[in-house]
Amino acid sequence: MKSETIWRCIIEYDGTEFAGWQIQPGQRTVQGAVEDSIARILGERVRVVAAGRTDAGVHALGQVISFSTASGMSTRKMLKAFNAVLPDDVTVVRIDEAPVGFDARYDACARTYRYTISHTRCSIGRSYKWRIRYPVSHELLAEATRPLVGKLDLRGFSKRNEDDDYRTIVYKNDWTFKENEMIFEITAIRFFHHTVRSIVGSAVEVARGKEKPDLLERIIITGDRSLAGPTAPACGLCLVHVEYEDTYYGK
Amino acid sequence: MKSETIWRCIIEYDGTEFAGWQIQPGQRTVQGAVEDSIARILGERVRVVAAGRTDAGVHALGQVISFSTASGMSTRKMLKAFNAVLPDDVTVVRIDEAPVGFDARYDACARTYRYTISHTRCSIGRSYKWRIRYPVSHELLAEATRPLVGKLDLRGFSKRNEDDDYRTIVYKNDWTFKENEMIFEITAIRFFHHTVRSIVGSAVEVARGKEKPDLLERIIITGDRSLAGPTAPACGLCLVHVEYEDTYYGK
Repeated sequence: MKSETIWRCIIEYDGTEFAGWQIQPGQRTVQGAVEDSIARILGERVRVVAAGRTDAGVHALGQVISFSTASGMSTRKMLKAFNAVLPDDVTVVRIDEAPVGFDARYDACARTYRYTISHTRCSIGRSYKWRIRYPVSHELLAEATRPLVGKLDLRGFSKRNEDDDYRTIVYKNDWTFKENEMIFEITAIRFFHHTVRSIVGSAVEVARGKEKPDLLERIIITGDRSLAGPTAPACGLCLVHVEYEDTYYGK
Repeated sequence: MKSETIWRCIIEYDGTEFAGWQIQPGQRTVQGAVEDSIARILGERVRVVAAGRTDAGVHALGQVISFSTASGMSTRKMLKAFNAVLPDDVTVVRIDEAPVGFDARYDACARTYRYTISHTRCSIGRSYKWRIRYPVSHELLAEATRPLVGKLDLRGFSKRNEDDDYRTIVYKNDWTFKENEMIFEITAIRFFHHTVRSIVGSAVEVARGKEKPDLLERIIITGDRSLAGPTAPACGLCLVHVEYEDTYYGK
């Protein structure tokens, strides 16, 4: 019997023309593109697991995936082969052999997402930002998201799905302000469906003066999703980094 | 008789889905998109002139255009109207009333183009870079383009067309090196067809060791286009700035 190799890859993708990570019949998905590439390279149909199941239109600079094959191909050759067959909008940045039993989703101990908002209309890079048309206060943005640290139940920011447990640990969040951009980064053990986009949408409602500065705190305390602002658009969101116990990977 | 207003606009565009600046029958062009917008806003069909007639796939952050209308609309209203009707991939960044007789093309006294090369495959932002697969020397890139300053005849770097005069003045050129990117900027009174892309293509041939470091000097001296390297792809090129006597504009 041949032994299996578990592969761990860091991948980058432009989510614009994908219906998200997860395979769906009749849709172009990142998981589908990666699994098709593996089938072409190794002649094997394998299931690929991702650290973050990003939605349609969401990008990734540092998504981590894992899969297991019987192939003994070298990592160097595998990396070359991947980027030769993948479509332009997906890139394998790095590939390693992972320890026995490794799973990109269950073993991830922190995920970092970045959300980019633009004050101004722009054409170059417009697929990577949410452009807002009203003035917002930088101070209020920072104040609004201040309560979002520590052990939290984020059901108030999450679209309900199969999962009933919305507890997580948020390690940090911060805003960076550039000339025309406001960039939010948040790191947590795990996120739920639409969580980051709902946090950003709520913070923007505060920062434009439509809601009180304690809005996000009230959503955390009550778990009441009806209090949250409109979910910010997918195009502004990017999965930038995933952390594992073995921090060598995912950097 | 109504007096005409001359408008001067700074525009940004993502050239990916345009067949260049200049109107061509049956093609989607930037000039066509801008003229269609004016027709929708003012009900007038006018001819728009651009400082740089960029090719298919070439981008602009600071293209300058001019046109003349009989409308007395305010600049503020005109800016809003433009960005309400233009497609996403064209943005009017600024609009001003220009002095009588102003022409964005003939009055421009310097144009700056930027060319971006990437060492690595990337998916995010891939429409704005030329990705090269071989190692190149930063030192040789800088050495190769050093002779490109001053009064020069650039016929050796230019695709021949109606214009027989290839003399220009290059004010400056320089390279910036980032982790994965090599960025070339060049400012000259005027450029010809494919000039910047041919300069970059030739410099890369030097920097990868296929040609001697004096290649660009020999092309300048001989005017022999057959010596030049392959023309670099359009997607890496961006018109970033146009200068006028009245330097207030185009900044």
